[in-house]
Amino acid sequence: MPNVLAERYASPALKAVWSPAGRIGIERDFWIAVMKAQRDLGVAIPAQAIADYERVKGDINLARIAERERLTLHDVKARIEEFSGLAGHECIHLGLTSRDLTENVEQLQVHRSLGVVRMKAAAALLALAKQARAHRALMLTGRTHNVPAQPTTLGKRLAMFGQELLAAFTRIDELAARYPVRGLKGAVGTQLDQLTLLGGSAAKVARLEARVVKHLGFKTPLFAVGQVYPRSLDFEVVSALHQLAAAAASFATTLRLMAGQGLLTEGFQKGQVGSSAMPHKVNARNCERICGFATILSGYVTMTGALAGHQWNEGDVSCSVVRRVALPDAFFAIDGLLETYLTVLRQMEIFPAAIAAENTRNLPFLATTTILMEAVKAGAGRETAHEAIKEHALAAAKAMRSGGDADLVGRLAGDARLKLTRAKLEAILSEGSRFVGAAPQQVDMFVAEARRAAAKVKGAAGYQPGRLL
Amino acid sequence: MPNVLAERYASPALKAVWSPAGRIGIERDFWIAVMKAQRDLGVAIPAQAIADYERVKGDINLARIAERERLTLHDVKARIEEFSGLAGHECIHLGLTSRDLTENVEQLQVHRSLGVVRMKAAAALLALAKQARAHRALMLTGRTHNVPAQPTTLGKRLAMFGQELLAAFTRIDELAARYPVRGLKGAVGTQLDQLTLLGGSAAKVARLEARVVKHLGFKTPLFAVGQVYPRSLDFEVVSALHQLAAAAASFATTLRLMAGQGLLTEGFQKGQVGSSAMPHKVNARNCERICGFATILSGYVTMTGALAGHQWNEGDVSCSVVRRVALPDAFFAIDGLLETYLTVLRQMEIFPAAIAAENTRNLPFLATTTILMEAVKAGAGRETAHEAIKEHALAAAKAMRSGGDADLVGRLAGDARLKLTRAKLEAILSEGSRFVGAAPQQVDMFVAEARRAAAKVKGAAGYQPGRLL
Amino acid sequence: MPNVLAERYASPALKAVWSPAGRIGIERDFWIAVMKAQRDLGVAIPAQAIADYERVKGDINLARIAERERLTLHDVKARIEEFSGLAGHECIHLGLTSRDLTENVEQLQVHRSLGVVRMKAAAALLALAKQARAHRALMLTGRTHNVPAQPTTLGKRLAMFGQELLAAFTRIDELAARYPVRGLKGAVGTQLDQLTLLGGSAAKVARLEARVVKHLGFKTPLFAVGQVYPRSLDFEVVSALHQLAAAAASFATTLRLMAGQGLLTEGFQKGQVGSSAMPHKVNARNCERICGFATILSGYVTMTGALAGHQWNEGDVSCSVVRRVALPDAFFAIDGLLETYLTVLRQMEIFPAAIAAENTRNLPFLATTTILMEAVKAGAGRETAHEAIKEHALAAAKAMRSGGDADLVGRLAGDARLKLTRAKLEAILSEGSRFVGAAPQQVDMFVAEARRAAAKVKGAAGYQPGRLL
Amino acid sequence: MPNVLAERYASPALKAVWSPAGRIGIERDFWIAVMKAQRDLGVAIPAQAIADYERVKGDINLARIAERERLTLHDVKARIEEFSGLAGHECIHLGLTSRDLTENVEQLQVHRSLGVVRMKAAAALLALAKQARAHRALMLTGRTHNVPAQPTTLGKRLAMFGQELLAAFTRIDELAARYPVRGLKGAVGTQLDQLTLLGGSAAKVARLEARVVKHLGFKTPLFAVGQVYPRSLDFEVVSALHQLAAAAASFATTLRLMAGQGLLTEGFQKGQVGSSAMPHKVNARNCERICGFATILSGYVTMTGALAGHQWNEGDVSCSVVRRVALPDAFFAIDGLLETYLTVLRQMEIFPAAIAAENTRNLPFLATTTILMEAVKAGAGRETAHEAIKEHALAAAKAMRSGGDADLVGRLAGDARLKLTRAKLEAILSEGSRFVGAAPQQVDMFVAEARRAAAKVKGAAGYQPGRLL
Repeated sequence: MPNVLAERYASPALKAVWSPAGRIGIERDFWIAVMKAQRDLGVAIPAQAIADYERVKGDINLARIAERERLTLHDVKARIEEFSGLAGHECIHLGLTSRDLTENVEQLQVHRSLGVVRMKAAAALLALAKQARAHRALMLTGRTHNVPAQPTTLGKRLAMFGQELLAAFTRIDELAARYPVRGLKGAVGTQLDQLTLLGGSAAKVARLEARVVKHLGFKTPLFAVGQVYPRSLDFEVVSALHQLAAAAASFATTLRLMAGQGLLTEGFQKGQVGSSAMPHKVNARNCERICGFATILSGYVTMTGALAGHQWNEGDVSCSVVRRVALPDAFFAIDGLLETYLTVLRQMEIFPAAIAAENTRNLPFLATTTILMEAVKAGAGRETAHEAIKEHALAAAKAMRSGGDADLVGRLAGDARLKLTRAKLEAILSEGSRFVGAAPQQVDMFVAEARRAAAKVKGAAGYQPGRLL
Repeated sequence: MPNVLAERYASPALKAVWSPAGRIGIERDFWIAVMKAQRDLGVAIPAQAIADYERVKGDINLARIAERERLTLHDVKARIEEFSGLAGHECIHLGLTSRDLTENVEQLQVHRSLGVVRMKAAAALLALAKQARAHRALMLTGRTHNVPAQPTTLGKRLAMFGQELLAAFTRIDELAARYPVRGLKGAVGTQLDQLTLLGGSAAKVARLEARVVKHLGFKTPLFAVGQVYPRSLDFEVVSALHQLAAAAASFATTLRLMAGQGLLTEGFQKGQVGSSAMPHKVNARNCERICGFATILSGYVTMTGALAGHQWNEGDVSCSVVRRVALPDAFFAIDGLLETYLTVLRQMEIFPAAIAAENTRNLPFLATTTILMEAVKAGAGRETAHEAIKEHALAAAKAMRSGGDADLVGRLAGDARLKLTRAKLEAILSEGSRFVGAAPQQVDMFVAEARRAAAKVKGAAGYQPGRLL
Repeated sequence: MPNVLAERYASPALKAVWSPAGRIGIERDFWIAVMKAQRDLGVAIPAQAIADYERVKGDINLARIAERERLTLHDVKARIEEFSGLAGHECIHLGLTSRDLTENVEQLQVHRSLGVVRMKAAAALLALAKQARAHRALMLTGRTHNVPAQPTTLGKRLAMFGQELLAAFTRIDELAARYPVRGLKGAVGTQLDQLTLLGGSAAKVARLEARVVKHLGFKTPLFAVGQVYPRSLDFEVVSALHQLAAAAASFATTLRLMAGQGLLTEGFQKGQVGSSAMPHKVNARNCERICGFATILSGYVTMTGALAGHQWNEGDVSCSVVRRVALPDAFFAIDGLLETYLTVLRQMEIFPAAIAAENTRNLPFLATTTILMEAVKAGAGRETAHEAIKEHALAAAKAMRSGGDADLVGRLAGDARLKLTRAKLEAILSEGSRFVGAAPQQVDMFVAEARRAAAKVKGAAGYQPGRLL
Repeated sequence: MPNVLAERYASPALKAVWSPAGRIGIERDFWIAVMKAQRDLGVAIPAQAIADYERVKGDINLARIAERERLTLHDVKARIEEFSGLAGHECIHLGLTSRDLTENVEQLQVHRSLGVVRMKAAAALLALAKQARAHRALMLTGRTHNVPAQPTTLGKRLAMFGQELLAAFTRIDELAARYPVRGLKGAVGTQLDQLTLLGGSAAKVARLEARVVKHLGFKTPLFAVGQVYPRSLDFEVVSALHQLAAAAASFATTLRLMAGQGLLTEGFQKGQVGSSAMPHKVNARNCERICGFATILSGYVTMTGALAGHQWNEGDVSCSVVRRVALPDAFFAIDGLLETYLTVLRQMEIFPAAIAAENTRNLPFLATTTILMEAVKAGAGRETAHEAIKEHALAAAKAMRSGGDADLVGRLAGDARLKLTRAKLEAILSEGSRFVGAAPQQVDMFVAEARRAAAKVKGAAGYQPGRLL
């Protein structure tokens, strides 16, 4: 039974981190690193043993390990026996408890995955900035409560979701930078067994741990854990992923709304075909999928949130099955989301004519405040003009809802109280740029910030998403 | 990348329902059932076509279907093409939209899974009743706020968790009985395409749908859906599973507490070995795992809860990826939980001597109300006796916490105000049955109810869990 | 600091159940009922005491009770002392533990609230059925993926949300009917103290409990609880409320979408005024609020879901503060939702002309399958006709997106391959009823089911929502 | 109906931020600040008007405002009218949309609340460090799976929860430092109305906004929002609070476990009385309450998580009712939690004698690895010794569970294979410090880190919690 998130949606990079074979590779490298450090610190481990473990570390036979686990019902023991069996020694895992292995390996998986996510989030910032810039000044009917409210620009609407994405990126960035690792702490966190193994030398234990932490790619270990690292750290990671997912989902939700108005589509991938019954239809199914991934992440937030705060003494394994599911699957979900998001950002199709037509329908209503001001300038009394505009707006809206023509401009032009001709009114409405306020400048600010953020991230600028299913 | 819930924890019965191949088998049977009914109602489908589809339906080649999907990016289309390609006809899926297939098939998967869960829940009721009955009158120190409060019996404690399990069973039972199916409703739910196919005959459409509903094992279809059935139905299912999980998790949590007091262990499976460093230790890891499964289910509650209430018009697919994950994985989790629960119920080991020792330590404190009553009977003034008992209880508790001997009985016997000899006091305390109240009778009520509930469920009485990993 | 859900949104009926004074009234009635039953069973309680408690039970001074609680830091004790102080006796709460009071009183609050919710849900079914019936055959552009897909009717779209509401109503109905009460069980559930009080007579204890259960309005008590009833029961209640909320939220979400298309508004309450800047605008703010209430309920699902499965031994109070928040607030939220939903159902305004205009724009696209069939009837080859239609649909869609006129009918009429004149094509498109399939009949089925369900519920038919804020 | 979290648990400081009157005070200050800035930038606002608004700003009549809202059904309008009515001018809210007021005011409330939370979290770090230091080397039986595993120290166990608290503190600290504010952005975020008001001068709009942002206490505004700031920011805040709550809840959970073993109590507040029936009993009800608050926060995580990612266009108010509940209540909950946590940290009572007694019971089992090593040193064969120890450990455990005396030391001393006398064994076991590994040094590291973190926070060192209810 395949993991559907991994197999349908996640990228090879993420799968490699979390696959059973990938994990065993990481574990074996970890054991070897510990062994070498222990030997250097005086533990009697033959050089030949290390060489033999190195030699066989690539021989990963999942079926045989599963067979061993079915006998002992202990997963770590099964993997120790397999590796030692292959090497013909019993020199790994000295002075370690199972958690010395599994906690550190899982944190390495989390940390590497955060790196991938951070890179793709930066790539999304750049792709979104590119689209925002391209449509920087394209006037669009802004909506609140889902009904027309005031003009904005398409670029600004995209930049708005970019602002949300920037905030989420910052959080991922901070977290990846300070994400700590448990280190070698033993059964209840006191380092007793390593101390014993290293002749009671606290200094040697510290050197051993420092070597291991460096091997794992971290700067510094946690200093006062029990058997497990605090589970609120998993919650922190998964809630950061959900925040990132939410930024994408706000964008995707609004694209789904705009597709419903006929203003754009999310586009097709090369070779993709639409419905045979309705060939003209382009469903926003990738945007829907982005929303779906965000929902999935909300579930893993609940799972890891429910583990946080429930530590019994130095730790237990009531979190074990939860973390086996929630950690990889949360990363697969955010990875699938980012791949989808990047694809949509690359292939979305804008229909400026349809956008303009919507503006034309709505602009007179949206511009009533401006028209009022101009009427006053033209000599109308403020209260009189306000009353007149209100009457016509209500009548025009009623006409439109009754299937007639709203023709608000005509109505206003025909009212002497306002002292504005049709030509004048049309002139006012034609100056699109006066209605979009600071929208284009806001786009520029987003583009600059997005570039600044992404510039720190290796690989983001050139990253291309894989083909989606 | 395997689905860890399916591969490590779920039973073959559940995996068969949800596996890719299992699902395709169900789909093909569904298509054939529709085809046969359509032919009987006059649609021009050759008998040979049906025969050819029947002939090839077992030839399920997942790799080839995946290959087709990579081309069209449409999963249902890929499965249609594969099946029709094998049969050499194009007679399936006539007048159907993708959702006519997928909604019905997924509901069948849910319904069958609910049946398995209901059976195992009934088996758990019986196993729990057996344990409760065995320890019906075994006095145990009842605890509130995790500190000794009043005596109960072990059987009663188990029956208490049985009461919770009964409520959850009732909910699953009601739901499985009335869980409805979408039926053949077409792209937006109006049955337009089947009506067209069947010459506009509403009666024929109704007969077609009735045949299909019956094939799926349901009594009646929903009558006014859109493209999708209401997603709050998924939430109802998953929240019922979580309720069931919670009943087991309350039991498991308390067992973990009792193991910590040394009163029992959850036992070992045959062949299981403990820690080599601490061979005497029996960790409650299966109970911890039960709690973990309940936590997992709380995440799927969040996911399906977030889908409920978000229907856009006649439906969309923002739920698709969520349901691909949450529905099978919720059932794998509850199945893994029930297998684990049944195993623990079968192999748990009670230590009556340790339980008795705990009673002995605590009973004098727990019995102070009774001692007061007896002192009054013996001629002490009520207020005087109350004051005396309070003094001694506080002093005894203080002594105990200071590492001394509480000896509350000794203290009370030594106080003339109470008019009770040590012998009398010990006689009072020795009548265990007077302290456990109605506990044994409450066990009897639970046992009777559990048997009544389980008697309706085929297969429950003889069910044995598989070997856990 | 007021409870915002209660004060802004909930109805007086719900507030009366959960207000501090309301609760104290319920508690005092409970104590009196217990006292009377105990006296009848032989406990030495003077008739005068009962009379005195009865006399003062209406004198509820929250400030004085709060003052008492600040001294003892024990809320139940404060309320006992206040009541007994007023009456001048110490005859209440005999043989009771705090939970004998609070669990039962809270379950009565839940049960009464479920009754109110059930009634309003039935009223919503009737109001929705009325709207569905009124627009039974009004053709509407059905949408999937938020883009036009196939015609339906407005009545059918409403009935679709009615189907979801019916399912939720059924769940509330089942739950209200079998919701059980804890009864008098004592500190750890063994009824020890009542047994002691009633001379060890199990029969008397049973009679006492039966009287109390009847007083509370329940049929039967739970039989094997600890200090607390199982918390998964709270989860069951709150998840049922969330399911009901979801049914309303699906409706509200789709109304928000339709308001964005200009097809309807949710209407105004009497006296309500719109924006002064944009007087024609009617925001779907009540529908948005319905969605908000559903989101709130999802949070209480998480809270009660997190309590379920965490029982330690016979119970503790880690649930206390959670239940103080989640239970009343969940009911206030669903009550506010139902009041809002009923208001929208009563005042929503449909714009048939706008709906027709949308159909006109989309129908040619939606009818291509039918047109194909007619072309074949008229003598065209199937494959040829399919190819021709596809060409024109794509071209028309492209034209529309480029701001031109789609004119699909014109394009098709101009293609000789199809053998259909413009008149013939227009004739086909004008037969609206052939495109809506079984939609009107599905409405009838919903109306019948809704009436059947609501007929069981006293007060539903005449219920009118209060004025919203 | 009072807000129970505010009234029973939150501190006056938090209530002042969120109370209706407190909020109105903040709003009026905001309006005045905007007015002054607008006047300085050239808007024609009379100095007298500003003076008059200043004069009446303290006259907050909630009933009258509520009365106004019932008429217009618009909360912001009601508050504008009330304030302007009192002042006798119409100069506030010029060019503002409702959200220009409410978003900024609510973010100020969040920001101030974060400041309070950060201070109390720092105070908790100090209080926990004090306790950890006091029990730095007090040997304690460390537990995994809730059963004895290896020795640790009480101080180390506390430091372990301190490590989790430090991580949560860091997150709150980072967030409070960079939490951004929306600023004055107008109806759809384009600043159109302020631009119009200020004669089209972008520079003036920027200066206006800078003044307002400074007034609110922020460094910089968001630059590209719509009508609303991104709701994922609310999720970020509430999930940070939940992380903090979890750190406290892990501590509280373990204290509840330890209270159940009789090793400590959470203590009593001055004047608090225990149960009259069981006067010696000290329930960990404050620790239970801490766990309850964490559960409550998990619900607000779900609520705000469900808002995140659902932005429709430039924004709507489906989030409104949710945020009215979730934001204040989340802060009341964390505030109540922190007050409770600080109280427990101050008054918890440790029972060293009980802790020592537990060590004595368990130490021989926990020390088997050490004993093995010593046996080998004394001349025993490694495998022989291992076998002997295993036999005796199993037998001793069995004896203990059967109510007998484990006497593992006696058993080992009696076995010639081990070559260790009883005196020698007892000597080994008496060297407590050799079993606790690096625990004391880890405490020192925590204490140093906690002090470093708290040193940055004004008010933390001297903060004392209020009296709990």
